[in-house]
Amino acid sequence: MKYNPVTKDIIDELREIVGVKNVITDREKLEAYSHDETPAEQYAHMPEVVVTPGSAEEISRIVKLANRELIPLTPRGAGSGLSGGAIPQYGGIVISVEKMNKVIEIDYDNMMMVLEPGIVTNSVNEMIKDKGLFFAGYPMSVETCYLGGNIAENAGGGKAVKYGVTGRYIMGLELVTPTGEIVELGGKRVKDVTGYDLKQLIIGSEGTLGIVTKAIIKLLPLPTDKVDLLVLFKDVRSAIAMVPKIMTGGRIIPTGIEFMDKLSVKTSCEYLNEHLPYQEAGAMLLIEVDGNRAEQVEADAETIGELCLENGAIEVYVADNYTTQERVWSVRRNIAEAFKVYSPHQSLEDIVVPIASIPDLIPELERISKKYEIQVPCYGHAGDGNLHATLVKNPQHTMEEWYEIEEKALREIYTVTKNLGGTISGEHGIGSKRKSFMELVADPVELELMRKIKKAFDPNNIMNPGKIFDFD
Amino acid sequence: MKYNPVTKDIIDELREIVGVKNVITDREKLEAYSHDETPAEQYAHMPEVVVTPGSAEEISRIVKLANRELIPLTPRGAGSGLSGGAIPQYGGIVISVEKMNKVIEIDYDNMMMVLEPGIVTNSVNEMIKDKGLFFAGYPMSVETCYLGGNIAENAGGGKAVKYGVTGRYIMGLELVTPTGEIVELGGKRVKDVTGYDLKQLIIGSEGTLGIVTKAIIKLLPLPTDKVDLLVLFKDVRSAIAMVPKIMTGGRIIPTGIEFMDKLSVKTSCEYLNEHLPYQEAGAMLLIEVDGNRAEQVEADAETIGELCLENGAIEVYVADNYTTQERVWSVRRNIAEAFKVYSPHQSLEDIVVPIASIPDLIPELERISKKYEIQVPCYGHAGDGNLHATLVKNPQHTMEEWYEIEEKALREIYTVTKNLGGTISGEHGIGSKRKSFMELVADPVELELMRKIKKAFDPNNIMNPGKIFDFD
Repeated sequence: MKYNPVTKDIIDELREIVGVKNVITDREKLEAYSHDETPAEQYAHMPEVVVTPGSAEEISRIVKLANRELIPLTPRGAGSGLSGGAIPQYGGIVISVEKMNKVIEIDYDNMMMVLEPGIVTNSVNEMIKDKGLFFAGYPMSVETCYLGGNIAENAGGGKAVKYGVTGRYIMGLELVTPTGEIVELGGKRVKDVTGYDLKQLIIGSEGTLGIVTKAIIKLLPLPTDKVDLLVLFKDVRSAIAMVPKIMTGGRIIPTGIEFMDKLSVKTSCEYLNEHLPYQEAGAMLLIEVDGNRAEQVEADAETIGELCLENGAIEVYVADNYTTQERVWSVRRNIAEAFKVYSPHQSLEDIVVPIASIPDLIPELERISKKYEIQVPCYGHAGDGNLHATLVKNPQHTMEEWYEIEEKALREIYTVTKNLGGTISGEHGIGSKRKSFMELVADPVELELMRKIKKAFDPNNIMNPGKIFDFD
Repeated sequence: MKYNPVTKDIIDELREIVGVKNVITDREKLEAYSHDETPAEQYAHMPEVVVTPGSAEEISRIVKLANRELIPLTPRGAGSGLSGGAIPQYGGIVISVEKMNKVIEIDYDNMMMVLEPGIVTNSVNEMIKDKGLFFAGYPMSVETCYLGGNIAENAGGGKAVKYGVTGRYIMGLELVTPTGEIVELGGKRVKDVTGYDLKQLIIGSEGTLGIVTKAIIKLLPLPTDKVDLLVLFKDVRSAIAMVPKIMTGGRIIPTGIEFMDKLSVKTSCEYLNEHLPYQEAGAMLLIEVDGNRAEQVEADAETIGELCLENGAIEVYVADNYTTQERVWSVRRNIAEAFKVYSPHQSLEDIVVPIASIPDLIPELERISKKYEIQVPCYGHAGDGNLHATLVKNPQHTMEEWYEIEEKALREIYTVTKNLGGTISGEHGIGSKRKSFMELVADPVELELMRKIKKAFDPNNIMNPGKIFDFD
């Protein structure tokens, strides 16, 4: 793919479209848009220019310009992604939606909101909690990520076992297509089979099929009661073996079942200067149940707690008030950040397997850890079979050795995952980070169909090129 | 589109692929495959041949043959569809999955099943209820429809308010593409963002993007308790106005909220020789709540019942045992069948609007009913904003007049629906019945993208042609 450079004339045209103050060309300021939360030295790439448009119409004009001039475009939310999705792989223009952060409508009668993509996800819930409503999209980066990025990646998170992932709550989208048309998909309808479900195709397409400029999200009644259980196990295997049993044995679908191994808890606690009870347990599950009646929630929590104790848990701690709940969840939410401080050289993974296969996965991770002499701490959304195994560079290895080990160990982990019926990303996406592994897990026919869809939407391959798969 | 006829040589080749007994050419037997549950005289079309293959491999060979010879293919499930999706619009070959009805696996540990597409939906639940599990796909035709058809149409039904529609529970598909490749999409994973979500694109694509030959479905813990409320209202408006209030006021998401107007109840009761209490009420809501604790379910039912009485309900009847629940649900399930007996000339519609707009829709339906001097009984999944308004031929009109009125009245209903933020199908699909109205509700850009996707999958347009939209 040959792209053209962003010339002075193009900068002038961009200034004319979005206004001078919304065009960033200063190298120091551009730097912030060259990376996301993947390790910068491996994946970063500088944009030639960043624009911060204020409307779908402005974005449409920019996209038409980019098509005319064959300049690559990269849509960007908060830059909190973990697969390089918002990185301008081929330079060109970054379209940051940071200034498109308005609440267009709160529609209480339909229990929906209409939002711009640059809104911080957590702020949505802050706005509506007094009305007894909530948005069930809940990625771990909820305090910083944008709704637009959540849609692009079909973000998961800590409540997905019960509530599903972001896509379930996206009822409508306004999209600027890769050829610059503005189109509305879906609407305030909870059911719709009018032709192909393009809305759902856009969700999780990592900004390669267009730029979301507006979204209609569905709200749920805010649960009035919530209990978190912190359950300690002797070792990883007994914790992990518990996960499928909660749903099949307890016949309860908890809000979330999070898993943290000893190293993950330790690293996050040190980072937060926090002390959890029994920090020295081999592994922990953080199980949340919620509902609209205290008795029901307590009874569910009790059933799960007993089931855990019958199945080898050392101890079950109950967090039934906001302060203790925040303490335990904060440890869970900050693991990724803590590891980054501890070692900037790491590969945060996002593998997903059938839940009943998790117990078979863990010994394989241990084997790979030993084989390559690297630490592989593991945590994540065990209730969905989605584990953030993380390869951490051994300080004794050179960078050259690390890159070689990383590539080999990843291939081995992904192969093991695939053989267990799993795949390489549950919620972080493929982006540029994992695209070379797509052929390992996707059927060649499936890949070819994806490429054809991309071509149908984006004949010039200008929309977020270099993500998910390469052309030619 | 020019297709070739099915010659004797092709019949021989089909016999070679699926075996002589699986090729139907007898005209009398073919007739059964010429229609679905839409009125036959308007939409039926004879196939040239019907095949009943036993495997994906056989289907793959048939599809390759059809591509080579340019013969149209129509996949068919139980033929219980309501938009002509399984009708061979251009003749050619009907591929009926009726013999592909095996249970491949019941995976209790992952709470999933692997099934062939020809299995009757209700039989799935019969198989697993003793294990305390259930499949939440629940179309009204659950006792006759096939899983494959439910996937093709993304079927909704009576439990969608709480559980969502069929697509939410389809974890994986095996698909024979329109060019004859066999591909696996998804798997036993509850989260997956590995590239575009092709599985979700296939769901609801009405058999135009391939033939599903296997599906992995997700099961849920079977609720132990269930209460149905039959709530009587003076008139349609007060019943319909209640619907959004249950969720916003009661902060409860019931399993389902079904609506039946007086004429629908009367017709179904006569058909079943059934007598519901207060059959003379102007309209009824049938509200179901379920859960795993009797106290919770009873409390939810009580809250909803009180809310209804505060908002003008005449009476609330509680059906809390299997016999009475089956009685009221049977009336609801048999409305469509009853109307067909009463008048074979009718148009069963499937419009969907934002739930808060239902009260505005009803007077419009009444206006259209008066204007064209036809009855427009109305019933359906009010909790989803999805109403089966049905145009019934006035016996005083000639067939010619009826077809003219039907076309005009439909256009008017669809326009009203669109103006309220709705669309023309919530769960029955577009098929051949509604394709001429696609341009009324879909953005031209959206339609163009759909056509491009169809072309990318099916370059020769042999897979269920004449459905959703036409090509030149």
